[in-house]
Amino acid sequence: MPRIEENLNALTPASHHTDEKLVAACRYSLLNGGKRLRPILVYLTGELFNADNADLDLIACAIECVHSYSLVHDDLPAMDDDELRRGRPTCHIAYDEATAILVGDALQCLAFETITESQFNGTTVNNQLKIVNTLANASGLLGMCGGQALDIAATDSVITLTQLEQVHKLKTGALLKSAIKMGALAGNANELEIAALARYAEAIGLAFQVQDDILDVEGDTHTLGKPQGSDIEANKATYPALLGIEGAKDKARNLVNQAINALSEIDADTGRLKAIAEYIIARDH
Amino acid sequence: MPRIEENLNALTPASHHTDEKLVAACRYSLLNGGKRLRPILVYLTGELFNADNADLDLIACAIECVHSYSLVHDDLPAMDDDELRRGRPTCHIAYDEATAILVGDALQCLAFETITESQFNGTTVNNQLKIVNTLANASGLLGMCGGQALDIAATDSVITLTQLEQVHKLKTGALLKSAIKMGALAGNANELEIAALARYAEAIGLAFQVQDDILDVEGDTHTLGKPQGSDIEANKATYPALLGIEGAKDKARNLVNQAINALSEIDADTGRLKAIAEYIIARDH
Repeated sequence: MPRIEENLNALTPASHHTDEKLVAACRYSLLNGGKRLRPILVYLTGELFNADNADLDLIACAIECVHSYSLVHDDLPAMDDDELRRGRPTCHIAYDEATAILVGDALQCLAFETITESQFNGTTVNNQLKIVNTLANASGLLGMCGGQALDIAATDSVITLTQLEQVHKLKTGALLKSAIKMGALAGNANELEIAALARYAEAIGLAFQVQDDILDVEGDTHTLGKPQGSDIEANKATYPALLGIEGAKDKARNLVNQAINALSEIDADTGRLKAIAEYIIARDH
Repeated sequence: MPRIEENLNALTPASHHTDEKLVAACRYSLLNGGKRLRPILVYLTGELFNADNADLDLIACAIECVHSYSLVHDDLPAMDDDELRRGRPTCHIAYDEATAILVGDALQCLAFETITESQFNGTTVNNQLKIVNTLANASGLLGMCGGQALDIAATDSVITLTQLEQVHKLKTGALLKSAIKMGALAGNANELEIAALARYAEAIGLAFQVQDDILDVEGDTHTLGKPQGSDIEANKATYPALLGIEGAKDKARNLVNQAINALSEIDADTGRLKAIAEYIIARDH
């Protein structure tokens, strides 16, 4: 969606008001040709409930800032130590480690700045506050950061399928779910609708991770933009390792079916959310 | 203030819901015997306008989370590479680098979770949104993160007094100013009152930094909790280096006078804010 790229491009302040290199490095990390899955989920969910488009723009930018910051920090030498991300040098390679640490910090902050700068048009201030809280909950100790720590702790150790799912529920699932919930809140969806969409989001979140693990085994380094086989090399627990490659594929298919079933409770055209669910297990990168 | 320590102690979630080591490392970094200057400024300003105490508790915890996270990341090997903070091993020494990166990320997030978890009692949701935005603005590219990047860029290079002040205005001044502004917003202060308090905050923010630089020259390693002379060793631009030690002391005194003058515009008992201003240049650590 060109709209997402334009909005992300306009997000960072003029660099002469602060450190130019830091702003450039933030832009390098934010405008990196990502899939923009989280912003797309914000728009598709918001549109189901006729949310205001300008509000969705802000939420979409904010969640992509959080996602981008997490990639920059995950790539650091002390974390996953990755030199390549979507076919380009990672932030700490293109710039330096100190800058990459600050880029992550600043992008997380930019997320919260973006969705609190002014009152939303299409919903109450109270719902806007819930949206900010949803993003914060999904990103923190009980969400993304907690999941990343669990993931590090699980490396080089034998874990069960239940434990692996807990890792991914926090590490990637929480933020994906928040995309859906924020879009729905922006459109003033009711609690039942939000609960059904949350089930959809949980299922596609896990499916996304299963597919990532499958691609790490079957994918192509050039298409992936990162070295194929890197999970195995890093001795990480994966779905193919626990279930076998066919078992993992079955699991991904079942999760997508669960996601699509959850959508049947929504009284609106959910065709595009269904298509996203299908895309998640069809993608090759 | 025991109240601040009790609230910070209660802030982190039960560790069995997420990675235990990460929660422990967050607590280690947050409960480290800091001066709690920013929380104190929140309370003292809020009390001028009879703000709700429970609201101030949340704001005080949030700003200390941001301050703590910035210390954890600043201490990392790729940044200032400090092994000692307030007489204890820094987070990446006590734990490890990956954990310290995640601690910073999670504490920043916890700040925004804390002040959006429920509606404030003593002010409007609209003012609460402004409070969240104030914290985000102060922490990001045009505040603390930008200032840290400018500080790194200035190391090993000759900078002017104006440039040094711009570094500190962003690196430490913006967050101190936000403490005052958030306390005032929680008490529904008017714009003139907020502007006067902002001038107070800017002056004590710079005075704080000037005094830090003076202590780096004249202080005692044991009292400081960090090695005396570390700025000089790191080849950092400082006020004593630019103005001489007596010039730096005059500057700190003048800034405190400016701060106290700004308070004359507030129609309430500002005695405790005056005392804080005096404390800032009287402290020995």
